[in-house]
Amino acid sequence: MLAPDGTRYRVDVTDGVFDPHNPLLAGYVAGRRVVAFVGPTVDRLYGDRLRAYLGARLEPGSWSVHTIDSGERNKTLASAERVCAVAKASGLDRHGVMLAVGGGIVADVVGFAASMYARGIRYVKVNTTLVGQVDVGVGVKTGVNALDSKNMFGAYHPAHASLNDPALLATLPAREIRCGLAEIVKMAVILDSDLFRALEERPDAFLGSSDGALETYVLRTSMRLMMEELCPNLREHDLARLVDFGHTFSPVIETAGGHRLEHGEAVAVDMALSAHVARLLGLLDAESCARVVTLLRRIGLPVFDPATCTPELMTRALHASWQRRGRKLHLVVPTGIGKADFVERLEDLPADVLRAALDALARDGGTE
Amino acid sequence: MLAPDGTRYRVDVTDGVFDPHNPLLAGYVAGRRVVAFVGPTVDRLYGDRLRAYLGARLEPGSWSVHTIDSGERNKTLASAERVCAVAKASGLDRHGVMLAVGGGIVADVVGFAASMYARGIRYVKVNTTLVGQVDVGVGVKTGVNALDSKNMFGAYHPAHASLNDPALLATLPAREIRCGLAEIVKMAVILDSDLFRALEERPDAFLGSSDGALETYVLRTSMRLMMEELCPNLREHDLARLVDFGHTFSPVIETAGGHRLEHGEAVAVDMALSAHVARLLGLLDAESCARVVTLLRRIGLPVFDPATCTPELMTRALHASWQRRGRKLHLVVPTGIGKADFVERLEDLPADVLRAALDALARDGGTE
Repeated sequence: MLAPDGTRYRVDVTDGVFDPHNPLLAGYVAGRRVVAFVGPTVDRLYGDRLRAYLGARLEPGSWSVHTIDSGERNKTLASAERVCAVAKASGLDRHGVMLAVGGGIVADVVGFAASMYARGIRYVKVNTTLVGQVDVGVGVKTGVNALDSKNMFGAYHPAHASLNDPALLATLPAREIRCGLAEIVKMAVILDSDLFRALEERPDAFLGSSDGALETYVLRTSMRLMMEELCPNLREHDLARLVDFGHTFSPVIETAGGHRLEHGEAVAVDMALSAHVARLLGLLDAESCARVVTLLRRIGLPVFDPATCTPELMTRALHASWQRRGRKLHLVVPTGIGKADFVERLEDLPADVLRAALDALARDGGTE
Repeated sequence: MLAPDGTRYRVDVTDGVFDPHNPLLAGYVAGRRVVAFVGPTVDRLYGDRLRAYLGARLEPGSWSVHTIDSGERNKTLASAERVCAVAKASGLDRHGVMLAVGGGIVADVVGFAASMYARGIRYVKVNTTLVGQVDVGVGVKTGVNALDSKNMFGAYHPAHASLNDPALLATLPAREIRCGLAEIVKMAVILDSDLFRALEERPDAFLGSSDGALETYVLRTSMRLMMEELCPNLREHDLARLVDFGHTFSPVIETAGGHRLEHGEAVAVDMALSAHVARLLGLLDAESCARVVTLLRRIGLPVFDPATCTPELMTRALHASWQRRGRKLHLVVPTGIGKADFVERLEDLPADVLRAALDALARDGGTE
């Protein structure tokens, strides 16, 4: 893809990314020294295949594979420094490539390391999670947590290429699949009623048995929608972004909840809350609101978190977001299935509306 | 300036940058929260004026000034982290500005901090050293030392504006002036014989008494030349850069010498060595070579460093540079006064030529 600012990068869907006959990955790193990083789980599941692939396609001695700690608590500057130290010890110069094989955290840490190593070197990622493939894998953001804030340090550093093999998703735990589906529901609610209906018909996409046709449609549609949204605004100069649907309350739901909920789960709660806010503000009809909440629940995602969905914490979340977005609220609310708009000002969301939305959410989340 | 890749930034020369009547600096930060960083010396000399300026021109409570450690050994990732922590504690969001008032090290550290803070925020620099004004201040590189390498971590993050007030140079120690003059000689040798002759006539520019006209000519000419060289190649995709004259042997002269020599002094030694290499390779006439060495000596810069100018260390420097520049040598050598070219391959510089050049250098450096 070529963004208006001249940034170029590739997002590919491929079968058998580590099949020695598949030239795609090798093509993106050919002639360069490659230092690959994988999380422990990916190493266990796909490490041998990755090594066999690199061994078959690259010059002997030009590549190495290293394990790094995954998990949100390891998404730190110290991890990015360790990635750089390993790369340096492996002889990587500014023409080398860092290869990240894993989910969002490995990609974020390795991507940020690549952004600062020798003032920025090429990196390539193979996304092994659903959220990685439809969300993180498409974007250009990298970063680590610091100073008690998520993604406090980072860079807009596009991967030279982002490779997605649907077969890698087969080994994911159901909870991670559901987190990816939360981001897909996000794209469907704000942009694509067909995608939404496809999920209503098959809320077990990626989770149940299938010939794969639905999954391929869902994957390619989500990636395309995400690219269309991100492309004109890669570096987020415009802070009113529809893809921030589900990402206003969720940072506090994640952090104040001590990361009990996964990111995608917090996003699901946020989307349900935002839908009720939209309904109570008269921006969304009751039936569409119910469809959003029901789809999330049928997928198996939470729509309420009693510990964090309090008026106090959610008000704090609104203020933090307002601060982050340049003293504008830019709260994304659905205005139908496949349509969305912004609530722009803090005062447009009165305390009693927020309270009523949280009460409605508690009822949704309570009825099993 | 507007580079071909769309990067925009300003380099200004102004009088009385901290004069409350001067709107320039305030204009670049207006309406934004400002967190300013200064080294201890600059704080002592100009801190009061800086605070009075910000107090006179900005909203109360929207700015603060902080001291950071300067010196090469504080050019670390930990320093950049501390800058970010101070900025966060001061309430800086992604719309805020980091202001660096100082020399190259403060600019490098604060600039790198700004590049990663919230994935990149605006920074503005006021350059207080000669090398800052003619060299660092014009470029877009930021960085810190790590993993035993200079500028191992960094970013190409242009300052939104780079402000230069010649009056700030009046308080500089002679040694720092000479280091700045080394970078000016560099530009003169490779690009501008008029500038070279002006320095031959007045090797005490910035050091002796003057009406300031020569200094203004030298400053503006050096900045213009630097901008013309950097502009088409801001992110150094082309690794054959004339402005790397003096920067091939010097990293090892600096580090292997335990930073006994300042950067500009090491650059002077490197330029003298490169001139002799050029002469011995038949690329530069003996008279021009002598003029380069003589001008450096008349300015008071070293042209030889016995501890590090050994065939072993200088061969190591060539290899490290070759590695850094993508396995090409790209050694810049003068081919006249105001003209330069590259020695591209390691094998184009035989060991006996290097040895002979070092012997000649020892003679230059030995005759007082």
